[in-house]
Amino acid sequence: MDIDFEKGNGLVPVIAQDAESGKVLMLAYINKEAFEYTLKTGRATYWSRSRGKLWRKGEESGNFQEIVDILIDCDNDTLIYKVTQKGLAAACHEGYESCFFRNYKEGKWVYNGEIKKFEPNEVYKK
Amino acid sequence: MDIDFEKGNGLVPVIAQDAESGKVLMLAYINKEAFEYTLKTGRATYWSRSRGKLWRKGEESGNFQEIVDILIDCDNDTLIYKVTQKGLAAACHEGYESCFFRNYKEGKWVYNGEIKKFEPNEVYKK
Repeated sequence: MDIDFEKGNGLVPVIAQDAESGKVLMLAYINKEAFEYTLKTGRATYWSRSRGKLWRKGEESGNFQEIVDILIDCDNDTLIYKVTQKGLAAACHEGYESCFFRNYKEGKWVYNGEIKKFEPNEVYKK
Repeated sequence: MDIDFEKGNGLVPVIAQDAESGKVLMLAYINKEAFEYTLKTGRATYWSRSRGKLWRKGEESGNFQEIVDILIDCDNDTLIYKVTQKGLAAACHEGYESCFFRNYKEGKWVYNGEIKKFEPNEVYKK
């Protein structure tokens, strides 16, 4: 009944979902360390594939995701983190509540009206 | 604005979500062919990693997923299929509406009361 990290070379995808609204916020990856850190802190922690290190979501932006519940799928290779978003309540580095702010319409990906919670270049200062 | 299939060696994960309830049903993978087949048929089609072939969901079980909407994330490497489940309305091969039928409770994965829509050994006959 353990998480199957082997199939994905040490990583499994995690769907972050708003615990109250059910909105899917983002998809990211965890390794064993990120999962244990999530349990320990009660905050969603991922593994950044691009940076190759633990990604303590919200550490820089203040937009933490507090864990409400964790689910696993039938194959033990995908999780859901049901979360409450803190800070500006934006999962996306582009400032939106959810990373899924575009829908497919007649061959194009079209902005779907998702509200922008912050302007990235004001928050991620150099 | 195209789907970034390169990062995942030709595959991207897709979150299947019930269009009405918002329940996350399953996570699977698509390649370009599966995406095009999905658009053409209006039914969720995936790429089976274990079988190495196109997975026309519901073809065997009758439990199709009709596409209501398709979303893409900020990095272009994850999709959401918002769907209406047909047939027995079960995404999971184990018979549940959702593959996420267990929650993490004090170190264990515990059945969360998800209703079973069918008995697998009655549906997947030899």
